[in-house]
Amino acid sequence: MTRGRRREHYQWNMDIIGVPEVTAEAELISSIVTFFKRIGITASDVGFKVSSRKVLQELLRRYSLPENAFGKVCVIIDKIEKMPIEEIKKDLTSVGLSEDVIKELLQVLSIKSLAELEDILGSGEAIADLKHLFSLAEKFGYSDWIKFDASVVRGLAYYTGIVFEGFDRAGKLRAICGGGRYDRLLSTFGGDDLPACGFGFGDAVIVEFLKEKHLLPELSLQVDNIVCALDPDLRGAAATVATILRGKGQSTDLVLENKPLKWVFKRAARANAQRLILVGTKEWEKGMVGVKILASGEQYEIKVDELD
Amino acid sequence: MTRGRRREHYQWNMDIIGVPEVTAEAELISSIVTFFKRIGITASDVGFKVSSRKVLQELLRRYSLPENAFGKVCVIIDKIEKMPIEEIKKDLTSVGLSEDVIKELLQVLSIKSLAELEDILGSGEAIADLKHLFSLAEKFGYSDWIKFDASVVRGLAYYTGIVFEGFDRAGKLRAICGGGRYDRLLSTFGGDDLPACGFGFGDAVIVEFLKEKHLLPELSLQVDNIVCALDPDLRGAAATVATILRGKGQSTDLVLENKPLKWVFKRAARANAQRLILVGTKEWEKGMVGVKILASGEQYEIKVDELD
Repeated sequence: MTRGRRREHYQWNMDIIGVPEVTAEAELISSIVTFFKRIGITASDVGFKVSSRKVLQELLRRYSLPENAFGKVCVIIDKIEKMPIEEIKKDLTSVGLSEDVIKELLQVLSIKSLAELEDILGSGEAIADLKHLFSLAEKFGYSDWIKFDASVVRGLAYYTGIVFEGFDRAGKLRAICGGGRYDRLLSTFGGDDLPACGFGFGDAVIVEFLKEKHLLPELSLQVDNIVCALDPDLRGAAATVATILRGKGQSTDLVLENKPLKWVFKRAARANAQRLILVGTKEWEKGMVGVKILASGEQYEIKVDELD
Repeated sequence: MTRGRRREHYQWNMDIIGVPEVTAEAELISSIVTFFKRIGITASDVGFKVSSRKVLQELLRRYSLPENAFGKVCVIIDKIEKMPIEEIKKDLTSVGLSEDVIKELLQVLSIKSLAELEDILGSGEAIADLKHLFSLAEKFGYSDWIKFDASVVRGLAYYTGIVFEGFDRAGKLRAICGGGRYDRLLSTFGGDDLPACGFGFGDAVIVEFLKEKHLLPELSLQVDNIVCALDPDLRGAAATVATILRGKGQSTDLVLENKPLKWVFKRAARANAQRLILVGTKEWEKGMVGVKILASGEQYEIKVDELD
């Protein structure tokens, strides 16, 4: 457990099943951007690093590595920013990559420009998908949120195409969210494969992030009424008044014990109460209660059945 | 796992800490009744069986049973409706109750009238608490929801006073909710004891109950717009339109692939969409899109920046 990483968390997941085109990935990122905008996060706070698993795949294909090495390489590469480079190299060696291959691989992974990548890979699927995605990003209006970064591979072995990761531009926090295309995942569960992509967006990092940016909303208590009996014998009467108000859909806090009025006022303030309803003996005998509007200090008596 | 009992569930918990008076229990039941009323459940659907742990305690005190037998007896009694009476008797014998005591105990537990109980117990705390609760119930206006039932003890050993249980009057389902006073629980966690009471209300039984009563709300999908490009080359244009609408706070479903219009209409119907926005080549060249209001069938063209 570290900052933004807990034993258990809630996660917003969104997946698009059945769409083979990159429009699906573009739409997923658009959803996250729309969400960010609504909660006050801008492109200068957060960005998305985007790449494709096909980059690594096309690269590894050249070296005739066994198919099953691919997933392992991805898992190792995902740790590139979290582990010393010597450890990464050792791990890559252990899955069968030669020193030369590792060198070239690490060089390609440091590329941050699509044009530069195209010079090395030529016009394969990796480049085509990425170009399509960046062109769609422009149409969706979130170009300033995303950038190509070959080092993004995501830790899960099952991704097959575009992968992306939302990151804190200030560099303080772990990845905010991440996802990608996983066209061959379903068959591993015994089903037929279907084109699919999706993302996971945990609640832990974003809460840290919103705190950091002072964007975490304060959800303060807010009740319509505090009802208080001025005499223990009127506890039942106060209950009746509370039931009437609740029946009208008003949130009503009932004082359950003998408490000094000072305590009741404090409680009303803490609960941001609109009104204080006081049930006193003389008033109750006339079927009335005292009302105090807390914002204005206005005070009056009213018949119980006229309360609203 | 049986009907209304799952491996994992969510539970509404409400607890009142610091109030020693029965007003707290009365308020807890009032909250549940208020909730039931709001979702359309009436006193003829659901009732509360109410008793007090003090009934059993006052009874057992007469027989000079050891203090620690009390919790065990409660746990056994709680199973009275779920297990054969001979099993119950055997279990009670095993915690040290004689045949005569068991006979009297079971007789008292079958009492459903407070007056009858008072004849046996006299005017102790058990009777005083219960009378106070029933009088408050009248003031809160939920007398028709509750009844005294000595057999209710609740399965948890920590209850010390009033205990209650919401039940399905049709008798088909397990307890809907339950709770009580637990004034001596906190010290078992190493803190100082504080008067406290509360209830747990799981999501499993109430869902079964609402299905049974046809009260489970249908939460159907409802989107403002379906945006569809009429040509693959306009996929980006459609993305732009979707972004504009989403920026205005409208829920907007974007068709991500080439699909026949028939498919799009079906999708619109399933999503209860208000409008279908069609992006066609000729209109887009003029900065316009086609709009179809799905309820009325009305169709028109509009400039993209006039869409709202």
